[in-house]
Amino acid sequence: MNPVDESTARLQMGERLDDLLTHNLKIIQSPEVFSFSLDAVLLARFAGVPPRGRMLDLCTGNGVIPLLLTTRTDASIDGVEIQPRLADMARRSVQLNGLSHKIKIIESDLREWKVEGELYDAVTVNPPYLPLQSGDHKGNPHQAMARHEIGCNLEDVIAATSRAVRPGGRVSMVHRPSRLVDIIDCMRRYRLEPKRIRFVHPRQEAESNMVLIEASREGKPEVRLLPPLIVYGEDGDYSPELLAVFYGKAAELPDFKRNNGRAPVAVKREKGNGGGSVNSDSQ
Amino acid sequence: MNPVDESTARLQMGERLDDLLTHNLKIIQSPEVFSFSLDAVLLARFAGVPPRGRMLDLCTGNGVIPLLLTTRTDASIDGVEIQPRLADMARRSVQLNGLSHKIKIIESDLREWKVEGELYDAVTVNPPYLPLQSGDHKGNPHQAMARHEIGCNLEDVIAATSRAVRPGGRVSMVHRPSRLVDIIDCMRRYRLEPKRIRFVHPRQEAESNMVLIEASREGKPEVRLLPPLIVYGEDGDYSPELLAVFYGKAAELPDFKRNNGRAPVAVKREKGNGGGSVNSDSQ
Repeated sequence: MNPVDESTARLQMGERLDDLLTHNLKIIQSPEVFSFSLDAVLLARFAGVPPRGRMLDLCTGNGVIPLLLTTRTDASIDGVEIQPRLADMARRSVQLNGLSHKIKIIESDLREWKVEGELYDAVTVNPPYLPLQSGDHKGNPHQAMARHEIGCNLEDVIAATSRAVRPGGRVSMVHRPSRLVDIIDCMRRYRLEPKRIRFVHPRQEAESNMVLIEASREGKPEVRLLPPLIVYGEDGDYSPELLAVFYGKAAELPDFKRNNGRAPVAVKREKGNGGGSVNSDSQ
Repeated sequence: MNPVDESTARLQMGERLDDLLTHNLKIIQSPEVFSFSLDAVLLARFAGVPPRGRMLDLCTGNGVIPLLLTTRTDASIDGVEIQPRLADMARRSVQLNGLSHKIKIIESDLREWKVEGELYDAVTVNPPYLPLQSGDHKGNPHQAMARHEIGCNLEDVIAATSRAVRPGGRVSMVHRPSRLVDIIDCMRRYRLEPKRIRFVHPRQEAESNMVLIEASREGKPEVRLLPPLIVYGEDGDYSPELLAVFYGKAAELPDFKRNNGRAPVAVKREKGNGGGSVNSDSQ
């Protein structure tokens, strides 16, 4: 185990250190550059993981998914990120948590990057959701690239996951439900068969604004539709169901109790991230 | 309006007359031959309908979907059924309800049947769900044909809906969620773009066992995922949500009140119909 090296994990201007509220994990974030969202946390809980072996996280951003995955698997985890600034944040977070022996951050463009060594047992990806032509991608270039299909589109992402995963291995993705048909269609073309799907709804009576989907490379056709995941209860607080997925048994954590069950630090993120997606700021 | 003609609508051996609990509609059913299920009722409520024009219901069985659709549209409705015994039951139900001016039942195999006149504005279909190799299709031949892919498979059904509907027209289907990927894949190949999907879950915490899906011929890619429809509440009774979809305002109906909100006649159906599907008998 590497000890935490505070000197290499120093915060840079505009960054802050957030608590992931589980296993004492910390993460470096920056409102100007990148903060993770509920989407990433739910994907890290939903994804099928091997007990050991090799995992890959594409579009890893500040490394939130690899960090959370270490609580569920002894696999080594590679994270690929195209933006140098984000890859650097991710590397410092890995060091800060003493996880350099488990997580490796690779700065690369997933369209060109090639797997070194054996194919991966499982792949996760929380890709940019928004089409290039939509919204305000001319603003902050870091945020724009994380949200809009600037560096890669849906097909680039699915093709990259398919190239990287071994036959029988799993690919898990979080995306917008409005793209469901494109996702399914594209996955099949790249020999990824969807096996588990879970829709996330902000409230019981609302349309879904997030989909979690797990596919198997060369899997046989038959998919399970998991129970809906409702984010907010009638009282406007996080639903017990969400907290269970989110924290497991961590809902007893002191940090959570201090907040009276409202918007714990770990799900705070900057405003305006993706409009319709689940956002604790919208409470 | 044709008057009810009791002489031509006589019941045959083993048949009974059930109340559809809405608009005074009645339907001829037979436990040995065919009784409609919750699937059909939910599809008739879910489907996008034109205010007038032409509608088509494939695999119409005893005609439950055309009968229910008459409460939502002034369109003329054709129902196609391959089994002579069922087509006859459907015709007698249409006569019994005085709806011969709105509904025409056509006895034909959807694989060979051709549209006469203009293409349809909207098409509904509640096809057989079960693969040919599964289960007990060697038992009652009427029930087997309605449940198993004996007379037509998923691709036959989707191809037939696509041939029958006009560009921009809607195709609505109810099916098993385990086939979702096949359905979406096949619809796209026949130029039907899924636009609205609703998953039905027997209970809040259960996986979905029914999917309602509406596609548009030549539609643009973008799909809405409606709120989940939960069939039973925690008390084991139908959920208020289901009753609202089911009856609209009819939950105040005396027949419903007499049953204390439990399993109204209209959703009773024979046991063993499709195993995992929602079934009021399983209460």
